[in-house]
Amino acid sequence: MSSPAAFADGPRAGTVYLVGAGPGDPGLLTLRAASLLAGATEVYHDYLVSDGVLAYCNPQARLIDVGKTGHGPQTAQDVISGQLVASARAGHRVVRLKGGDPLLFGRGAEEALELDAAGIPFEIVPGVSSALAVPACAGIPLTARGQATSVAIVTGHSISGGPASIPAADTIVVLMGVANAAVIRDQLVATGIDPCTPSAVIEWGTWARQRVITATLDDLPGAIARAGVGAPAVLVIGDVVRLRSRLARNTDGTAEADAQRCSVQTV
Amino acid sequence: MSSPAAFADGPRAGTVYLVGAGPGDPGLLTLRAASLLAGATEVYHDYLVSDGVLAYCNPQARLIDVGKTGHGPQTAQDVISGQLVASARAGHRVVRLKGGDPLLFGRGAEEALELDAAGIPFEIVPGVSSALAVPACAGIPLTARGQATSVAIVTGHSISGGPASIPAADTIVVLMGVANAAVIRDQLVATGIDPCTPSAVIEWGTWARQRVITATLDDLPGAIARAGVGAPAVLVIGDVVRLRSRLARNTDGTAEADAQRCSVQTV
Repeated sequence: MSSPAAFADGPRAGTVYLVGAGPGDPGLLTLRAASLLAGATEVYHDYLVSDGVLAYCNPQARLIDVGKTGHGPQTAQDVISGQLVASARAGHRVVRLKGGDPLLFGRGAEEALELDAAGIPFEIVPGVSSALAVPACAGIPLTARGQATSVAIVTGHSISGGPASIPAADTIVVLMGVANAAVIRDQLVATGIDPCTPSAVIEWGTWARQRVITATLDDLPGAIARAGVGAPAVLVIGDVVRLRSRLARNTDGTAEADAQRCSVQTV
Repeated sequence: MSSPAAFADGPRAGTVYLVGAGPGDPGLLTLRAASLLAGATEVYHDYLVSDGVLAYCNPQARLIDVGKTGHGPQTAQDVISGQLVASARAGHRVVRLKGGDPLLFGRGAEEALELDAAGIPFEIVPGVSSALAVPACAGIPLTARGQATSVAIVTGHSISGGPASIPAADTIVVLMGVANAAVIRDQLVATGIDPCTPSAVIEWGTWARQRVITATLDDLPGAIARAGVGAPAVLVIGDVVRLRSRLARNTDGTAEADAQRCSVQTV
């Protein structure tokens, strides 16, 4: 057996690292991401990257918040890409830190393609995806033998009242879908999914402020409205939601004591 | 800004931690996983957990290989669960280390439910999923603006020659599908997917021995046979595969120099 890798090789000057920050809990940051943050001179981060993760940045690094929120201030995509290119050309060791995984939604592929077009060396460092980890930390496995053997992941942004665009999988995960929950519900029911299918919305998953609300698919938009759930939130629709009662025994469905830690704890 | 979390709180005695090891590259291990491995007295691991990851275990820990391979020796699921329960009851600090993410396939939910039934405290620690990270490290984003807004993840084990069971998403990821590639191809074509859809198979993704082969969907089973691709392998079907030519410029499609590092590097 070899010794643990040191990850001493930090970021290279003139290179951009597209790094996944995970869903929020700093414990879900990868070793490689922590090493790159320790050596980066500039870190461009989204608003969903937690302070606990940013604490791994070099104290001398310049942190640039390019957070794209639904309503707050944001930086246009072409501006972000231009900044990344300019920083790399200036010789910086640049980390572009994105919530979750850098290539699952969030326009990471676009940024990589723009870096490629500009001839900037880059490296993609996968992260723990919110699509999987947020349900897991709420006690919901996306697959379970005999209950779910396929998973579909979509964003609410791409779902309109038009033709059905949600794949018919055993478990459906919708990122950024809270504002669109009624349209999503209607589309799923129209494609034949039982309105009584167990469903959940997880707000601020893995953060201290995490909330989990379960409902039938039919009532999911109503439950979201009654509880005042806002972004960021992950929707999960499928029989696996029922397992939460056994896999998250010490959570009460609203105030989540277990969210202090990334993971589900039983007592 | 706070200081980085120390993750000094190691595993508790009598508790089982279901931990994701990521796809193989030790840089994709999470900070929380590394902390738990450092403190665990017993580690039950799958065959897909790399030596580089196991190097993070406490040198005094007992490592138990319960690897489940397609054809090699393996430990029956009920035996594994029984061992976890017995170890916890004996007061061990137990890590159950699973390749990728612990709750996406791989029967992690089953193990958690069996621990719950036995009254054993447990904690679920998400990992970097092979379903996302293996394509990413081969230069294939699962989503890309204007090209793919939905992803389906299935296992080859669940696909038979019977009725279609693969959700119709823009990008389809099949884990453990290499032996079943012809059936998968036939099913996808039967459901209307263009046989010319760009496809890829990634063998030993993120490991030093990684190989990536691209082909049309129609030719994917043939390409797998000609190259002698075996498990573990991830299949990706969708237009996003075409982006690999721009996001993995320094890979040649067979011998993957970039696989020495978890991530895609451009020069």
